[in-house]
Amino acid sequence: MGLPPKTCAAHYFDGTEPGPDGLMALAQRALELRDGSSPRRCDGLRLGAVFFNPSLRTRTSLEAAAVALGIHPMIIQPGKDAWGWAFEDGAIMDGGQAEHVRDAVPVLSSYVDLLAVRSFARLIDPEEDRAEPVLGAFMGLSSRPVLNLESCRWHPMQGLADAATWVSRLGPLRGKRLALSWAPHPKPLPAAVPNQVLLTASMLGMDITLAHPEGFDLDPQIVGRATGLARVGGGALTVSHSPDAAAGADVVYAKSWSGFSGYGDRVGEAVRRAACADWMMTRERVGGAGFMHCLPVRRNVVVEDSVLDGPRSWVTEQAGLRMWTAMALLEHLGRGGTW
Amino acid sequence: MGLPPKTCAAHYFDGTEPGPDGLMALAQRALELRDGSSPRRCDGLRLGAVFFNPSLRTRTSLEAAAVALGIHPMIIQPGKDAWGWAFEDGAIMDGGQAEHVRDAVPVLSSYVDLLAVRSFARLIDPEEDRAEPVLGAFMGLSSRPVLNLESCRWHPMQGLADAATWVSRLGPLRGKRLALSWAPHPKPLPAAVPNQVLLTASMLGMDITLAHPEGFDLDPQIVGRATGLARVGGGALTVSHSPDAAAGADVVYAKSWSGFSGYGDRVGEAVRRAACADWMMTRERVGGAGFMHCLPVRRNVVVEDSVLDGPRSWVTEQAGLRMWTAMALLEHLGRGGTW
Amino acid sequence: MGLPPKTCAAHYFDGTEPGPDGLMALAQRALELRDGSSPRRCDGLRLGAVFFNPSLRTRTSLEAAAVALGIHPMIIQPGKDAWGWAFEDGAIMDGGQAEHVRDAVPVLSSYVDLLAVRSFARLIDPEEDRAEPVLGAFMGLSSRPVLNLESCRWHPMQGLADAATWVSRLGPLRGKRLALSWAPHPKPLPAAVPNQVLLTASMLGMDITLAHPEGFDLDPQIVGRATGLARVGGGALTVSHSPDAAAGADVVYAKSWSGFSGYGDRVGEAVRRAACADWMMTRERVGGAGFMHCLPVRRNVVVEDSVLDGPRSWVTEQAGLRMWTAMALLEHLGRGGTW
Repeated sequence: MGLPPKTCAAHYFDGTEPGPDGLMALAQRALELRDGSSPRRCDGLRLGAVFFNPSLRTRTSLEAAAVALGIHPMIIQPGKDAWGWAFEDGAIMDGGQAEHVRDAVPVLSSYVDLLAVRSFARLIDPEEDRAEPVLGAFMGLSSRPVLNLESCRWHPMQGLADAATWVSRLGPLRGKRLALSWAPHPKPLPAAVPNQVLLTASMLGMDITLAHPEGFDLDPQIVGRATGLARVGGGALTVSHSPDAAAGADVVYAKSWSGFSGYGDRVGEAVRRAACADWMMTRERVGGAGFMHCLPVRRNVVVEDSVLDGPRSWVTEQAGLRMWTAMALLEHLGRGGTW
Repeated sequence: MGLPPKTCAAHYFDGTEPGPDGLMALAQRALELRDGSSPRRCDGLRLGAVFFNPSLRTRTSLEAAAVALGIHPMIIQPGKDAWGWAFEDGAIMDGGQAEHVRDAVPVLSSYVDLLAVRSFARLIDPEEDRAEPVLGAFMGLSSRPVLNLESCRWHPMQGLADAATWVSRLGPLRGKRLALSWAPHPKPLPAAVPNQVLLTASMLGMDITLAHPEGFDLDPQIVGRATGLARVGGGALTVSHSPDAAAGADVVYAKSWSGFSGYGDRVGEAVRRAACADWMMTRERVGGAGFMHCLPVRRNVVVEDSVLDGPRSWVTEQAGLRMWTAMALLEHLGRGGTW
Repeated sequence: MGLPPKTCAAHYFDGTEPGPDGLMALAQRALELRDGSSPRRCDGLRLGAVFFNPSLRTRTSLEAAAVALGIHPMIIQPGKDAWGWAFEDGAIMDGGQAEHVRDAVPVLSSYVDLLAVRSFARLIDPEEDRAEPVLGAFMGLSSRPVLNLESCRWHPMQGLADAATWVSRLGPLRGKRLALSWAPHPKPLPAAVPNQVLLTASMLGMDITLAHPEGFDLDPQIVGRATGLARVGGGALTVSHSPDAAAGADVVYAKSWSGFSGYGDRVGEAVRRAACADWMMTRERVGGAGFMHCLPVRRNVVVEDSVLDGPRSWVTEQAGLRMWTAMALLEHLGRGGTW
């Protein structure tokens, strides 16, 4: 892309920026805020949130968190409220894209104090998604901190809420057992959430089992990175191909994703996916573990109603913490914090 | 649906919750606010407004009213800004719906202090619409008061503005003569507004003539309920099949709706509707009555320009009162009021 | 249209309302605000912004400016968030349009303190676009000041930012040389921006060269009006058919537009447009002039990357000034200013 160098020391991109201690501090601050601690006001700031994809919890929790601090949120939906964008350098813009990121972002970032962006993986070319063309462009071009609201490979705002949920439910996290289990789904999905779970849990020293059917592997670069972080943090990362990985775990996190090794092969992926419907998370499989999912969740496909509506489900608390963790993060960045 | 029991004593669903005295108090408070009384601030509250259908006046009047009280409004448009929702219990979500109301509402309601919802009748199965699947789910699942912004059968925010308009124009309402007259329209429409007019006017003791062509009856359950309320309130409800019911009335309220007895029969309904174009409200028919309509209105189909642009039209005041009545309601609920 | 007389002395429609001195004062106030002067608060006001067409900079700069002054912005997108609108008097509304401007605007304007509207030219009938059916209706029907966010023929908020850019870069403007140069584009575009550039620059006494290929003339009414204004202001307006009009200019403003003489002839216009691809603005053509464009810009079609990304480009400052000029204008109108 040849973008300008990253100019801002406060971008929040893959969630590792705060480091393990900073991450724990944000999670604990979120729980304090939920328990009634007064937010540290950031009156008069403006947050621009650009959504290239739909959102419910991410947008509303961010907006609610901003407002609670006195920050005005502006929601921008390019291609819906505005025109389609081009991201490639040197593009000859004689087609349907009317706006280039190089022209839009410096201006937008001058209108606000914080910029947030959502842009999902296209799931066509693994190298394109690894390059994070949209978030990379925003971070390179923005004069203001950029918050990742889910990119091709990461979902750090979700990761922060997940960390706060673990702290709330499990206390000290080192050595706590997390099963991250692949789940069935009618559509191929990006891997930003499971990637983020690996990174977040490994930073916090959890003992992670990554379970998926053959062919539904995550990006080996990311698994390798998480393995290294787990080692440093006092935990471990093991890969399993059993749908029963939740047995004995403290918490099971279910999520569907497309396999990295078949990236872009939609037909083959659909065939493989259809063959794995028996990976649905059941009450028996969850057992005594807490159950987590980032929502929205396909009921009775990813997981049985009896789990979601039963006593082992943590999903409402987990999603509720999206607002409090966003507030903790905005408090930090809105008051000039860096990493 | 098997929803959890209604947990909140402040839902505003069919507009009868405040009772006749409470309804009059809200209408009068709205007129005071319009006349310059200072709003009672509710600073720092958040209102989530979920629109499953389009809106102009309802959204903008609610947003303006919220802001005037220091309440931050968040507008949510599922299926546009977010994903399509499932509402049925036990749904196997392997199709196009990505989000279940059971997962979304508890979380959304935890982000806000008040929740408001619009979801129109589908006009396919009368029992489905009578069951109010969307509003019912929200009220059952929300930990916060739910405001109905027009559901299958009710439009209580409109009813409140209608009541304030009657008070503003007619003074004491007992025995005042209201004609609710069916009107032509190019499309079949839900009956939430005429249902609400019946309920509101009967609670306030007005003398109501419900006029419609044969086959364009309202739900007999609702007509029966309004008849009972009118009797208690000192008024009466009469059904007529004449397009000239406005003669001698203090106010005529025109509105198109689909007949209840032909519910779901779109072809037959269109034939019957086409045969009743002569029910258009004219200057002659309105005579000396005030003219009301909830807007938007099909000019020269529902009603002649000469009525809307003439001295007997109350529609601009009526729609203008949407903001002031919303403000009165939010003042009450935002300060912890129940019914 | 037979609309009611314009009732408000503070509409901002074609940007000439403040007169040359008022325009300079707004431009200078915008630069003061950018340099850190405290905004004059307008707390508690509400601004309704109605977009019949997409927007990025216009909406976000207006919203950011409003918020900085304590004004709450409400964004309304008819036909997306609401129903399609009718504008013709006497319309028999039995088709797809559910809302008439005559019913909507008086109500909407009663909910807010300021109303803003975007509605582009349809480029079918020159007389229809000259009549400004949408902005005209809003100005005739609104009880509050109406701000034009780009209409068929004008874009005065852009004009204000352009003026501030000229002041920022060139100091006193009388006699400064501006080249307004037509540019290639894959689609036929309205002429609101070049019309506005002519009007703004001529009011400020600049020496203007309007350059375009044969057949891409602007409306002679507007060229005539600008010529008169330039004469009064101490400048001049010359028409050229050379793509090299920037030579010797202080600033070149590139923009594509449809020719007025071929209005509505889409096929012929496309053929003529395709033959003028060599009007693309290059580094050689720009020379020592500053380069301006209203954005969004088709890179490597309208102008080469090397210009936009080079030292002669003023476009980021120009677009950045959208927020500060909107703030200066809202300060004036929000505090009761008229023209």
